[in-house]
Amino acid sequence: MSPLGKKLVHLDLKGAPPKFDYLLKLIHLFADLGANGLLIEYEDMFPYEGDLESIRASAHPPYSREEIAILQDTAKSRNLEVIPLVQTFGHMEFVLKHGAFRELREVGHCLGTLNPHKERAVQLVLEMLRQVMELHPGSSSLHLGADEVYLLGQGEESRQWLTSPNRSVHQLFLGHVTRVAKAVRDRHPDLSLIMWDDMLRGMSLETLKESGLVGLVQPMIWDYSPVLDVENTVLLMDKYSSSGLSQLWTASSFKGSTCVHTCVPSTQRHVDNHLQWLKVASSRPAAVTLQGIALTGWQRYDHLSVLCELLPVALPSLASCLQTLIYGSFSAEAQTRVTEILGTPTEVEDISSLSPENSTSFPGQKLAASMVELTSLLQSEDLRLFESNMYVRGWFTPYHRRRKIAHPLIAQQIQIQVMALLQAVEPRAEEVRQEMGLLYPQATVEEWAEQHVSAVLAPLHSLLKDLQLAMEDMGLHAPVPPSGW
Amino acid sequence: MSPLGKKLVHLDLKGAPPKFDYLLKLIHLFADLGANGLLIEYEDMFPYEGDLESIRASAHPPYSREEIAILQDTAKSRNLEVIPLVQTFGHMEFVLKHGAFRELREVGHCLGTLNPHKERAVQLVLEMLRQVMELHPGSSSLHLGADEVYLLGQGEESRQWLTSPNRSVHQLFLGHVTRVAKAVRDRHPDLSLIMWDDMLRGMSLETLKESGLVGLVQPMIWDYSPVLDVENTVLLMDKYSSSGLSQLWTASSFKGSTCVHTCVPSTQRHVDNHLQWLKVASSRPAAVTLQGIALTGWQRYDHLSVLCELLPVALPSLASCLQTLIYGSFSAEAQTRVTEILGTPTEVEDISSLSPENSTSFPGQKLAASMVELTSLLQSEDLRLFESNMYVRGWFTPYHRRRKIAHPLIAQQIQIQVMALLQAVEPRAEEVRQEMGLLYPQATVEEWAEQHVSAVLAPLHSLLKDLQLAMEDMGLHAPVPPSGW
Repeated sequence: MSPLGKKLVHLDLKGAPPKFDYLLKLIHLFADLGANGLLIEYEDMFPYEGDLESIRASAHPPYSREEIAILQDTAKSRNLEVIPLVQTFGHMEFVLKHGAFRELREVGHCLGTLNPHKERAVQLVLEMLRQVMELHPGSSSLHLGADEVYLLGQGEESRQWLTSPNRSVHQLFLGHVTRVAKAVRDRHPDLSLIMWDDMLRGMSLETLKESGLVGLVQPMIWDYSPVLDVENTVLLMDKYSSSGLSQLWTASSFKGSTCVHTCVPSTQRHVDNHLQWLKVASSRPAAVTLQGIALTGWQRYDHLSVLCELLPVALPSLASCLQTLIYGSFSAEAQTRVTEILGTPTEVEDISSLSPENSTSFPGQKLAASMVELTSLLQSEDLRLFESNMYVRGWFTPYHRRRKIAHPLIAQQIQIQVMALLQAVEPRAEEVRQEMGLLYPQATVEEWAEQHVSAVLAPLHSLLKDLQLAMEDMGLHAPVPPSGW
Repeated sequence: MSPLGKKLVHLDLKGAPPKFDYLLKLIHLFADLGANGLLIEYEDMFPYEGDLESIRASAHPPYSREEIAILQDTAKSRNLEVIPLVQTFGHMEFVLKHGAFRELREVGHCLGTLNPHKERAVQLVLEMLRQVMELHPGSSSLHLGADEVYLLGQGEESRQWLTSPNRSVHQLFLGHVTRVAKAVRDRHPDLSLIMWDDMLRGMSLETLKESGLVGLVQPMIWDYSPVLDVENTVLLMDKYSSSGLSQLWTASSFKGSTCVHTCVPSTQRHVDNHLQWLKVASSRPAAVTLQGIALTGWQRYDHLSVLCELLPVALPSLASCLQTLIYGSFSAEAQTRVTEILGTPTEVEDISSLSPENSTSFPGQKLAASMVELTSLLQSEDLRLFESNMYVRGWFTPYHRRRKIAHPLIAQQIQIQVMALLQAVEPRAEEVRQEMGLLYPQATVEEWAEQHVSAVLAPLHSLLKDLQLAMEDMGLHAPVPPSGW
């Protein structure tokens, strides 16, 4: 056991849900890598029923009840505990974006935060929890989410509520969380309840003591930074344990925490985050019990943002982070173990140096390799800043495009340059598309492409099209651009 | 007299032709600054008549016959010689772009180069020359252009012509130039004929000797570089004079030669070019007579490219270059003289530090000051690379825009940022527009704005519009963006 306790791999399904057969392969890999459990955030991939059917994903089907049972059987067969995560206060965008639940928002222009004053909102959350727990009869822990409850206190009813003496946003938060947690406890007296800690961080020791959380929930302290502040994190643990909250969890990150649009993670960055957590563990107050660490792997920053690093491209990072926890450092031994299991170097950037046919490579390695190469191409300034190039700024501005005027010799230069760029990128993009289609639903393939590829290539296709129109208008022929994304 | 001979200010009218009253003020200023003449390239601003009426500018009227007479009277009153420049071989885009003259192109996809084999092409050029000379009875010199005759020799008839023995593209070039020059000489025996030298540079001494140019035309050697190669330029002069072409002109630049889309020139860069030319003059072969130097001020790189630096913003550069020639260096004395005449510092960037009401400021100073400030704002990476910013790449990609999905809180962030950028730029852009409208035709105002301002601001306006559509689609309100360019 690591000094940080159990090692849970976070399966964030709020974007790019793996096809089920790939998901099972991943679960086996997580076990091979030494994980002790899964923290599963289904979001809209859970087969909600009844009044909640509308909150299921629509771009692709959610996992079925049968698949969720098989998933748990597979996890159990590999000694992996399964902890479901259901958001119960903030980050409920996937529910509150729907017209039917719109009136349950704390404020109209914040899709994530529930209005805790509405009885229907509380019942909604309890019903979600009921349905999820019904399909997880073997789970002994449940995560209630409750992070980043933005704009809480700014709704009409909250502002009214806050006018009474001795009321604060902290109490508004605690009121809802304890109500929900108690309702779950009543129904499942033996279930351990976990929640994110960020909304508690600013509370005083006094507030925490009287919060009603002690004995009811276990906070999960999250910090994904490679330069995590060890001293202050230890002080935070001390505050929690002094208030009575001494059963703590931690959360690190192996992907999805660098930048909202990052496509390829840096292993070193995430290993560094884990090394900091190991320092926290070794300095923790004696009264604290660390239950476990969730290695988070965010699929997106929130329900409405772009997909960030996909799982396949982050497996070298996950493997390295897990071995860092197991070996206590990212030693040569730990690195060798990563290579043994994945059949690949630890640095994500090196994935593509492997032969795709390598029999010991990990599931998704081919997609990962293609994606590393494509991402590198897409980062080229020649491509991203093409419209700042001299020919375009000098001879094919909005003025020219609107009037269909082009200098034919310059137009040819631009076309040659654009086509060379596209011809370098598009075959690789098509390869990513093909490989992604094997592991992910088609809607995910389209989404990723539109967010990360079209954003870069569409302006070039539009430029080519306008050039061709101008050339035709001038009675000249232009080379036909390749069809593209 | 400068060691480089007469000092001609080049009036390029192929874009942004000044309103006539402003043009007259500029002519007085050129005289004040010590110029001895004007090299006027009318291009489509000449009131061509008869079959040539269609080659007149259509976006705004050309100068009238009366105005051209007044222009010459004004120049004469200030002891400025007037030398018209008529392109007779290359850079005839303003003629050959028209359907009626399309068949006179050397090759279909090159709008600039005349097919020298067509008798109608030769007659076209002679008629242009006739009409221009008719309105310039007092001129004793004429410039025949003939630079950058791109793709010469690649037309069907040329390729046929070149199959005969002892024929080359050099001879094809010389054949047309001498034919045109002789026809002018026949009609105006006392007229000095000037041509650009670039098509002659690669010719051997032998070819030049036998070119038929000796005694017929005087080459004008152009080089606009601040690091002009003095030694090789002297060697080139030596070759020309050895071949018999010893009456030479030179051409420097005070604007329009930095980059195709430059809006504000650097005085130092252009002064450096003139300092190099002074070195050439002091090292020139004894046999060479330097007739004069044309200080070119290109309005655009060619008929189809964007407008580059406008005259008002380049007057400090012109003044500094002329004083450099007069004083032999850019001495404190020369700089003081610039300030005396313009009432402004020599560095263009410092124009805006002057009060616009400064009674000694030069004509167009207010536009110049506004344009310096606007250009500086438009160069900001925050503005130019806005779509690369984290919020846009993370939450408002083509995927989101097409589907009208926006994260309302992020959308607000983007809107606030975009509007702050627009609010900083647009009032200044409007000021430039107003000032430009006083000195230039409205079509020039629109053109400059679409080329230099819309190119930068239009993507931001489009982003705001798409954000608003997404917000509306989600039943939310977004701030109304300012109306813009």
